[in-house]
Amino acid sequence: MAALKLMTRFNSVKNEIRYATPKALRLSQSKALSTAMCLEDGPYTGPVMKTPSPGPKSLEALQELAAMQMTGSMHFVGDYEKSQGNFIVDVDGNVMLDVYQQIASLPLGYNHHAVRNKVETQEYLSLLVNRPAMAVTPNYQYTSQLKDLLMKVAPKGLDCVQTLMCGACSVENAFKAAFIRYRALQRGNINPTEFELRTAMDNQVPGSTNFCILSFENAFHGRAFGALSATCSNPIHKVDLPAFRWPKAPFPKLKYPLEDFVDDNRDEESRCLEKVFNKIVTSNKEGRNIAGMIVEPIQGEGGNNSASPYFFRSLQAICKEFNVAFIVDEIQTGVGVTGKFWAHEYWDLPEPPDMVTFAKKMLTGGFYFKKEFMPAQPLRIFNTWMGDPSKLALLEPVLETIRSDDLIERTRAAGETLLSGLVKLQDLYPQFLSNARGQGTFSAIDVKDKPTLTRLNMMLRNSGLEIGTCGTAALRFRPALIFTTKHAELCLDMLENEIKKLKELKCL
Amino acid sequence: MAALKLMTRFNSVKNEIRYATPKALRLSQSKALSTAMCLEDGPYTGPVMKTPSPGPKSLEALQELAAMQMTGSMHFVGDYEKSQGNFIVDVDGNVMLDVYQQIASLPLGYNHHAVRNKVETQEYLSLLVNRPAMAVTPNYQYTSQLKDLLMKVAPKGLDCVQTLMCGACSVENAFKAAFIRYRALQRGNINPTEFELRTAMDNQVPGSTNFCILSFENAFHGRAFGALSATCSNPIHKVDLPAFRWPKAPFPKLKYPLEDFVDDNRDEESRCLEKVFNKIVTSNKEGRNIAGMIVEPIQGEGGNNSASPYFFRSLQAICKEFNVAFIVDEIQTGVGVTGKFWAHEYWDLPEPPDMVTFAKKMLTGGFYFKKEFMPAQPLRIFNTWMGDPSKLALLEPVLETIRSDDLIERTRAAGETLLSGLVKLQDLYPQFLSNARGQGTFSAIDVKDKPTLTRLNMMLRNSGLEIGTCGTAALRFRPALIFTTKHAELCLDMLENEIKKLKELKCL
Repeated sequence: MAALKLMTRFNSVKNEIRYATPKALRLSQSKALSTAMCLEDGPYTGPVMKTPSPGPKSLEALQELAAMQMTGSMHFVGDYEKSQGNFIVDVDGNVMLDVYQQIASLPLGYNHHAVRNKVETQEYLSLLVNRPAMAVTPNYQYTSQLKDLLMKVAPKGLDCVQTLMCGACSVENAFKAAFIRYRALQRGNINPTEFELRTAMDNQVPGSTNFCILSFENAFHGRAFGALSATCSNPIHKVDLPAFRWPKAPFPKLKYPLEDFVDDNRDEESRCLEKVFNKIVTSNKEGRNIAGMIVEPIQGEGGNNSASPYFFRSLQAICKEFNVAFIVDEIQTGVGVTGKFWAHEYWDLPEPPDMVTFAKKMLTGGFYFKKEFMPAQPLRIFNTWMGDPSKLALLEPVLETIRSDDLIERTRAAGETLLSGLVKLQDLYPQFLSNARGQGTFSAIDVKDKPTLTRLNMMLRNSGLEIGTCGTAALRFRPALIFTTKHAELCLDMLENEIKKLKELKCL
Repeated sequence: MAALKLMTRFNSVKNEIRYATPKALRLSQSKALSTAMCLEDGPYTGPVMKTPSPGPKSLEALQELAAMQMTGSMHFVGDYEKSQGNFIVDVDGNVMLDVYQQIASLPLGYNHHAVRNKVETQEYLSLLVNRPAMAVTPNYQYTSQLKDLLMKVAPKGLDCVQTLMCGACSVENAFKAAFIRYRALQRGNINPTEFELRTAMDNQVPGSTNFCILSFENAFHGRAFGALSATCSNPIHKVDLPAFRWPKAPFPKLKYPLEDFVDDNRDEESRCLEKVFNKIVTSNKEGRNIAGMIVEPIQGEGGNNSASPYFFRSLQAICKEFNVAFIVDEIQTGVGVTGKFWAHEYWDLPEPPDMVTFAKKMLTGGFYFKKEFMPAQPLRIFNTWMGDPSKLALLEPVLETIRSDDLIERTRAAGETLLSGLVKLQDLYPQFLSNARGQGTFSAIDVKDKPTLTRLNMMLRNSGLEIGTCGTAALRFRPALIFTTKHAELCLDMLENEIKKLKELKCL
């Protein structure tokens, strides 16, 4: 049975390889299948750097782009036909182990055969060329897409779901649902008054409310103006722009490893919870009522910062006390990366969160919500496209593969190898690395300081590791779900090598 | 030569028909090609209603959906494999002439062969399965996609372009570019101070500015919180939500037909321009500086409201005087629908607008901008995806078809037929219809009042015409670019028929 399954996947891999760079890959195919760290990687067994990164072809393209738009954040130019599995290939032919995966947005790595098979079907192609306005004339597959895909992985107890295009849009529409419900409760009527309708047209109270969203220091929830007012992970995202004067509460700054600092961390969380409580009381007193609270299970951009189930259960209890919508932002933590499909499954909440936002590895944006957050009047949660059924359809092979290939379990195992390896490295190089932390493969480690991080990151890229950064000075690991313990080991070796080099260069 | 071209297109149509509903369509193919109003319509020669709309299958699906999300705005459920050209087919087999085209977002109607051919290429499929984070590791085709697609149709004088996902996101990032530049000029330095960076993290001045965008009454610029603060076409979009306290200026309420009211309309425009000027002076004095102005060439959602080139030239002059970014929102007016590729080409501006936003028929969102609006620091205009290269790639067959099939000229001709027909109808039924207006096929006509409009709209849908509404009580025409004079005539006949029925029912 296992052998049959392996054969089937073997054949799939052969098919999949045919897509990539037919000539080169077919030549190396037999070697690939014997030495690859996982079948999904096709012919790639490790990084191969032919040029510094960015290489000359990347540089040329980036220079040309720079005449038309901002390019300061670009690493290099990708060749996505040649990329495969955990390995990204750039236009200069460099092959890199990719633990960043397009800012944590590819669930199955590059060119996964199941996804490729899906996009070649005629039904799928029809979704691409006839993109519907989903809230006006949805496609006939939409109901079953919701029921058989989104609702199958819905957080327990959340019966409603709205698709949207991207993370920021999902967050903002969850905010809208929170504001609309809060005002209905406050007014004692779901219907706005004539005066409210009129003043809203002028952006004035009472129609335009002074309601606030409470979020956390170092949070990231997206960069549309509403989402950005709840975001505060990096000032360059925000400075010079108008923002809603929404308050922030401190997010616990825990000490790692968590098991060594149980009491300290509990104290820190209690301190934060008290602040949360006080922020709501104060803001409500000022007539700037908190209608919703949004929180990431692990702060993603802000530094891979964790908190305990106790902290999140307490947040939910506080929200309940003040009628505040409790919104869990799982845009980066969702879809198995922490070792559970949704990270908040670890919390053992007495009841579901009010809303859960998603995007990135879900391929479509959107949010799950409780029925009481569905507005009574049409057009309140609405825009032209309301998501994209062609993205939603891609979720089918993704969810199916996660199930059939046991990818959440694989991620849990790979994450353990990665995290214990990081802990070992920080023990070996304590002046250099600290605070290894994470859940599943969703992990990070602090580097001495920002300049050293920048330098290390460049060295890693040049050695063939594509990785992100986050927080003050942390390396951020966001591999795809096909990342294995072998990739974790490779990744740790690469990191240690570069640290040794830095040490030799007397950078410590 | 012409015959050869026709044969090529004939064969393309045959190919295209094979995609749709192979059995039914192949049977009617010979008939179709002799009687269709245009080749793109495949087998469809007119509406065929088998059930009331929404039919039983639509109703069943909508009911199922209603358990999971808002459905109040949904018309019916589409069958997009069977839809073709100007005709949308629903799950009950009803065939409708579609002059709404997914809220004006399909450029070439349904299942256009050129678009279908594109999505079947291997290179295109790779863009679907390997979606890059475009501002980190863009795909290698990106530079040429910008140069050969977006820049080829760029508004004259705008050398820079940023892709984004949707209209609202495009508008908000244009706002960001306006705010960033305004603050740099005001501060006399492109670099924010340490104090600004720190206060921005708390959503407080001076880092979070009090800058405003000036927009117009009845404007629609999208529904993210920033865009929504510039939008005011319908209070249900806005009520109960927080909004930036941005001001609105009156948009001219012109009398139609324009040529009969030249003096009155000029006076009205001058009145509005004075208000615009005063709004900027007042707001700036209050420390709520206007950093950008956004305006639609023809207000789309707000009622298909036009203004003259003089009005827009004057707006630009006022903007220049106050260093306000002049942003033209062409999300609904762009891509040929007014008879020019960009509607603002009619204005004969002395210099280009500072920024032009696009989405809908461009398939990708984004904005063109002058180089001085490119922020100096990376990550200021940034999000995970920054558009979608698979949408951008679809623009290639669209632009090619617009050129090869002379679709802007076709749209101009169809628009003339449509508008002159609407004028005739309002002369015949003056108690019922008024203010026929538009440019190209981008047109509308006022109906007596809102209840009558709602009733008429339902009757039209049941007779086989899918159409939108806008403004106070107007029918809104937003056909695709493959709409012809014959479709315009059909559409006018259908409208007249339903009005006659209403009249017989003594609704007048």
